[in-house]
Amino acid sequence: MTRVMAEQLQRLDAWWRAANYLAVGMIYLQDNPLLSEPLQPAHIKSRLLGHWGSSPGQSFIWAHANRVIRSHDLDMIYLSGPGHGAPGVLAPTYLDGSYSEIYPDKSTDAAGMQRFLKQFSFPGHIGSHCTPETPGSIHEGGELGYVLSHACGAVFDNPSLIALACVGDGEAETGPLATSWHINKFLNPASDGAVLPVLHLNGYKIANPTLLARIPREELASLMRGYGWEPLFVEGSEPMAMHQAMATAMDSAINRIQEVQAEARRSGDPTNVNRPRWPMIVLRSPKGWTGPAELNGKKLEGFWRSHQVPLPDPKRDPAQLGQLEAWLHSYRPGELFDEQGSLIPELRALSPSGQRRMGSNPHANGGLLRRRLNLPPVHTYAVPVEQPGQHEAENTAPLGELLRDAIALNPDSVRVFGPDETASNRLQAIYEISKKVWMEEFLPEDLNGSELSRSGRVVEMLSEHTLVGMMEGYLLTGRHGFFHTYEAFAHVIASMFNQHAKWLESCIHHAPWRAPISPWNCLISSTVWRQDHNGFTHQDPGFIDLAGNKSGEVVRVYLPADANSLLAVAEQALQETNVCNIIVSDKQKHLQYLTLEQARAHVAKGIGLWSWASNDECGTEPNEPDVVMACAGDIPTKETLAAVEILRREIPSLKIRVLNVVKLFALTTPGEHPHGLSDRDFDSLFTTNRPVIFNFHGYPWLIHRLTYHRTNHVNFHVRGYKEKGNINTPLELAMNNQIDRFNLVIDVIDRVAGLGSRAAHVKERMKEAILANRAHAHEHGMDAEDVTNWRWNPLPAAAHAGESPI
Amino acid sequence: MTRVMAEQLQRLDAWWRAANYLAVGMIYLQDNPLLSEPLQPAHIKSRLLGHWGSSPGQSFIWAHANRVIRSHDLDMIYLSGPGHGAPGVLAPTYLDGSYSEIYPDKSTDAAGMQRFLKQFSFPGHIGSHCTPETPGSIHEGGELGYVLSHACGAVFDNPSLIALACVGDGEAETGPLATSWHINKFLNPASDGAVLPVLHLNGYKIANPTLLARIPREELASLMRGYGWEPLFVEGSEPMAMHQAMATAMDSAINRIQEVQAEARRSGDPTNVNRPRWPMIVLRSPKGWTGPAELNGKKLEGFWRSHQVPLPDPKRDPAQLGQLEAWLHSYRPGELFDEQGSLIPELRALSPSGQRRMGSNPHANGGLLRRRLNLPPVHTYAVPVEQPGQHEAENTAPLGELLRDAIALNPDSVRVFGPDETASNRLQAIYEISKKVWMEEFLPEDLNGSELSRSGRVVEMLSEHTLVGMMEGYLLTGRHGFFHTYEAFAHVIASMFNQHAKWLESCIHHAPWRAPISPWNCLISSTVWRQDHNGFTHQDPGFIDLAGNKSGEVVRVYLPADANSLLAVAEQALQETNVCNIIVSDKQKHLQYLTLEQARAHVAKGIGLWSWASNDECGTEPNEPDVVMACAGDIPTKETLAAVEILRREIPSLKIRVLNVVKLFALTTPGEHPHGLSDRDFDSLFTTNRPVIFNFHGYPWLIHRLTYHRTNHVNFHVRGYKEKGNINTPLELAMNNQIDRFNLVIDVIDRVAGLGSRAAHVKERMKEAILANRAHAHEHGMDAEDVTNWRWNPLPAAAHAGESPI
Repeated sequence: MTRVMAEQLQRLDAWWRAANYLAVGMIYLQDNPLLSEPLQPAHIKSRLLGHWGSSPGQSFIWAHANRVIRSHDLDMIYLSGPGHGAPGVLAPTYLDGSYSEIYPDKSTDAAGMQRFLKQFSFPGHIGSHCTPETPGSIHEGGELGYVLSHACGAVFDNPSLIALACVGDGEAETGPLATSWHINKFLNPASDGAVLPVLHLNGYKIANPTLLARIPREELASLMRGYGWEPLFVEGSEPMAMHQAMATAMDSAINRIQEVQAEARRSGDPTNVNRPRWPMIVLRSPKGWTGPAELNGKKLEGFWRSHQVPLPDPKRDPAQLGQLEAWLHSYRPGELFDEQGSLIPELRALSPSGQRRMGSNPHANGGLLRRRLNLPPVHTYAVPVEQPGQHEAENTAPLGELLRDAIALNPDSVRVFGPDETASNRLQAIYEISKKVWMEEFLPEDLNGSELSRSGRVVEMLSEHTLVGMMEGYLLTGRHGFFHTYEAFAHVIASMFNQHAKWLESCIHHAPWRAPISPWNCLISSTVWRQDHNGFTHQDPGFIDLAGNKSGEVVRVYLPADANSLLAVAEQALQETNVCNIIVSDKQKHLQYLTLEQARAHVAKGIGLWSWASNDECGTEPNEPDVVMACAGDIPTKETLAAVEILRREIPSLKIRVLNVVKLFALTTPGEHPHGLSDRDFDSLFTTNRPVIFNFHGYPWLIHRLTYHRTNHVNFHVRGYKEKGNINTPLELAMNNQIDRFNLVIDVIDRVAGLGSRAAHVKERMKEAILANRAHAHEHGMDAEDVTNWRWNPLPAAAHAGESPI
Repeated sequence: MTRVMAEQLQRLDAWWRAANYLAVGMIYLQDNPLLSEPLQPAHIKSRLLGHWGSSPGQSFIWAHANRVIRSHDLDMIYLSGPGHGAPGVLAPTYLDGSYSEIYPDKSTDAAGMQRFLKQFSFPGHIGSHCTPETPGSIHEGGELGYVLSHACGAVFDNPSLIALACVGDGEAETGPLATSWHINKFLNPASDGAVLPVLHLNGYKIANPTLLARIPREELASLMRGYGWEPLFVEGSEPMAMHQAMATAMDSAINRIQEVQAEARRSGDPTNVNRPRWPMIVLRSPKGWTGPAELNGKKLEGFWRSHQVPLPDPKRDPAQLGQLEAWLHSYRPGELFDEQGSLIPELRALSPSGQRRMGSNPHANGGLLRRRLNLPPVHTYAVPVEQPGQHEAENTAPLGELLRDAIALNPDSVRVFGPDETASNRLQAIYEISKKVWMEEFLPEDLNGSELSRSGRVVEMLSEHTLVGMMEGYLLTGRHGFFHTYEAFAHVIASMFNQHAKWLESCIHHAPWRAPISPWNCLISSTVWRQDHNGFTHQDPGFIDLAGNKSGEVVRVYLPADANSLLAVAEQALQETNVCNIIVSDKQKHLQYLTLEQARAHVAKGIGLWSWASNDECGTEPNEPDVVMACAGDIPTKETLAAVEILRREIPSLKIRVLNVVKLFALTTPGEHPHGLSDRDFDSLFTTNRPVIFNFHGYPWLIHRLTYHRTNHVNFHVRGYKEKGNINTPLELAMNNQIDRFNLVIDVIDRVAGLGSRAAHVKERMKEAILANRAHAHEHGMDAEDVTNWRWNPLPAAAHAGESPI
């Protein structure tokens, strides 16, 4: 390993001092950015916010990354795990000119610098994390734990890219981060790029030592090797010695990465390589490095008190003001910036140029690189439906075929992510074109059923956190991803969804220079209504409630009832940008209702009147029906139809309108969500005054919340899941939660006036049916045959026979 | 290490065969439990459910645990990480007699065995995980990832207890599990018990190899050592060799644990011990061990196809029926059970007796051991309040004092858990009595500010998953715990909350033999309305929406507006049992309104009429006010009061009633939640026809959902967080989301008819105030002084002056 020239490192140190100077300035200064006059209280911001602690360490890493980018002509991006230390990232992007190019008023002169410093963590301006406004950032770091999975997603299928991922030692304690070291089991050195983790041990969290900074060094080395990485240690506090050590480590790491990749790519066959031991760097440096050593006898540098604002009140305390001024001067800004406030050319030259700058690398504004998803013609996968409700099919299977061909048509830019359930969720057609990526050992039996490959497009790991992190990294660098998971355990990544939705919302409103990216897709399968043996723990349809808390601009929820509806949803949803699509569709066999053409019309509108199931002579009189039977979701739709059949047979005079909701947010107003139906359309479907029995997939109150402003809301009676479950047959679970056919019939009878004694008799029979079916299930372990084999029974032609099912 | 006698291991193997026989029986048989006649299709359940894969490995571990419990007289419980393999746990609890003691109809004879086998995963009966109905279980394993943190919580302050924790290799890939190996940094060998992890490498998840089973053995050993454990390897498939290896490993592990503990306890001073390298066992055995080798040429044993039901259809396929019968006979049940169906005495003797049986250990029914929480008199901590709304205090600080003294009064049975924020959340009074537990290295500077100790009652780690897991383990073994976290990141443990709530709900309804346990407490601090620099990522008050999806029997939500209300909430909430308490209270300084006595009355009712702020001559005429101003949460309460002050000054004729909600679920009906107010009480507070302007801490629709059935719901106008945030001053964030005083005044003016031109003028001034305050914030970085220093300004005495503030 060559030792880097001392002179070169002196310059690098000067660049680092410039970055640190700006970082301190961001936290404290609203004026006098170059210290061209003695520091006054008026120059200090009124409210001091931001995290100094990890900032100098991060700009140290950035400075050394610049060196190797230039020396090796690398394509590299930086992800800040401890994103709270944004000053350590913002300053470098200002020094390399990226910031001023995007925000011309933050120009590279004194006036621009003043605005750049003042805006930081200032009301109405930018945040103190690596928010979307930060050039070069694809990882905000507001929530901790996802930097390695984001980095991994970024380098998938980007063989020339290196993602330099700074892992905070606080962050490293989180579960998601702890398991994400295993990303190396999914990175192919031939066809993917490399992740270079820098575990930044600065010793402390907010007020505590960190675990990884305090365990014995040999344990830490053992841990990293156990995770499959080869650690390179850079430890100390004296800047020049640290520069030398870091330069050596970076050279070593880059050389190792390039050797590994060259070796793997020699044969040209990515299916024939093995997992290398990738390098990673342990950077152990003081928290608040180069900051004040102490305040009033209390240790600051190298202690947790440097976490945020080390000198809390220089505006009011003259002693602190003096300390701050000395601190700023310690970086010798006069040697770094010229009189106009521009970084001197000698230091400017240390940043790479153009798109090689980590503040301007296009991979970090992935929408720029994104190619439109090339979807195959969806009709190829359509399930034939001659009569609605006659045949069953696995709703998700055709989607698997669609994804298979999407992978074929978009080489190297589509990946499917799931914990362990691609086949369990009936998406196994994908394996016809691509297997599961797996860089570990193969056993002979894997050839017969494991569907593993060194270069698969499917990523399976039993960590929803890691998968979603990978998908996000993939999307943010301009590609297409699809995640599927169990419904109840979508909550595991609830906070990740929140953060991604907020990221998109911020991009739209605060960083319009970011080009739109592909949708965050989540197929929720293995749903609440089919948990025969997993039981109560696997019954939670509440993830869509969470989704409803985020802005309608960026969230979509779909509840297709059959295979063609799911295809039509996918066709629309997969091609949107800057949204999160949540698609709820169970994997089991379900009755099929709509042809693809009908399904497309259904999805286009969001709510469909199923006239083939209705007998209300729809369309002529908006308030004609006696009752509206609405449904959303596969099982609730089937139960609603079964109830309609009973009602039409038993009480033929009752006029029923059947509505099916496929876009959940069609229920709300257009002002709340772009899917929202106009009040006029809504009223014409749901009437303004008739009882509506709404059978819903999820917790019932979500429907009330969405329809709260609608004219007829007061007549909505919603059924849904209400935490009444255990080991139950499908019908029994439905009955326990009253979304079943029998209870729905009772609901109608209870809410439609004047049905007479016949209705009372029907109601009694429904109660008997509930008891009989429960007894049957408990005796025989399954639903009765007439329930299991139930099919929609076409009734005598109504006035509108022959009409389209929509 | 002594080699265990072959004869002893032969008997142990016979016991294991009995367990395996029962496990297979559970999955397949509804009759003919002892194979006393040839197996017929009628004996097979109609629907085959359950997980065979890890069951034999788990009963293998159990068999060997029984051996060391007896030989060393151990106090041991078993936690099943891969809880899906419940047959491997249920069978042992049946064999040791525990099951029949709790469920006498599942007696230890043929008839009881038939019922025992049939009930498994059968509609209306027990689930296929280690559900609450499972004797000896405190860990269902329905959701994966928490077995080590649960085990750690169980042994905290239980020095004689060993928690044997089976970690599934699929589970081991989850983030929560991956970081929870670090529990050893918090376990004191002198004062805590021991966790003995058994990493069960059976090679496969549902359809994939597992990472840890496929990485090189030296990497796995390195990983475990890096986590601080000393691995003992037990690997193979030949039963007798495996019994010998496992017996040796278990002896070795137990001896090592006892040596470590003896050494640590010798001096009698737990503050003076260091972290040992605890043993753990790697058990590598075939998936579906002892099951059929293959089916139709496809590998079963040792492959993922053994995950659930290896022979899928013996009821209809005679060849499979024959294979199943041979499989069952391979365990030689005739040698294991007598003619009545009882385990033969020689094998019965292999289980420990009484409470030493892992199916009957009282730690696993912790409510039995639980001592009532001894709370100090709460008035000691009360904040003096002479006039409401005049002085600020940190709302959570007195709670910290209460927790401090609760720790003192309940030695060894109260712990406080938080990511890194006990002081940040202003609970630092706790440190006066007890520090943060820390088994890692101490540095000199730790003496001056780190608050670390070998035997602290506070547990801090930057993993909400691990902390909540620890707390749950602590609660489930009969102790008291308190978790506090950032509001936005409560979503991180959303799924854990769901699972615990479901566990409690199941205990109440399906396992009444479980004694009630202490509440799952979560203080949500650092809330949405004070995120000056963390900004948008830290703004999400939706955790309480999630809570509202669970049964009202087990969930409580509190929104105390001041310090005394928080004390009164704590006094009530901490002493409940079998509930989850979610308490939302910001850590910053807030105005104080109620004396402790008033706060207690307020909490008792749940919603209070604050007559001191009202001018509607309350009590005489229920429908008297022109408008009801309701509020819930600290910041919304302050803004409501500020709006009321403006309205009373500017429009004195307007009759305003001020309501404050402290128990969120008081808003709903008593049928939905035990906190629910009767309709009569609700109507008398909220009126039946006047406009209600409700200022809410969270997302606004939650209030609509809760009040949906109330008479006056149609007149509710709710303000709350609606995802409009960035870097904002407190007032600006409130204004963006329209929960601020100015917007509230406008809301009232817009909704109360007949206020005249004066009101129109006030409305204009409010709009000007919004613009002026936003401009001030963007210019100066903070709110204007008159907003920051705002105090409730007592108005001229109203008719009811002198009345109690409630």
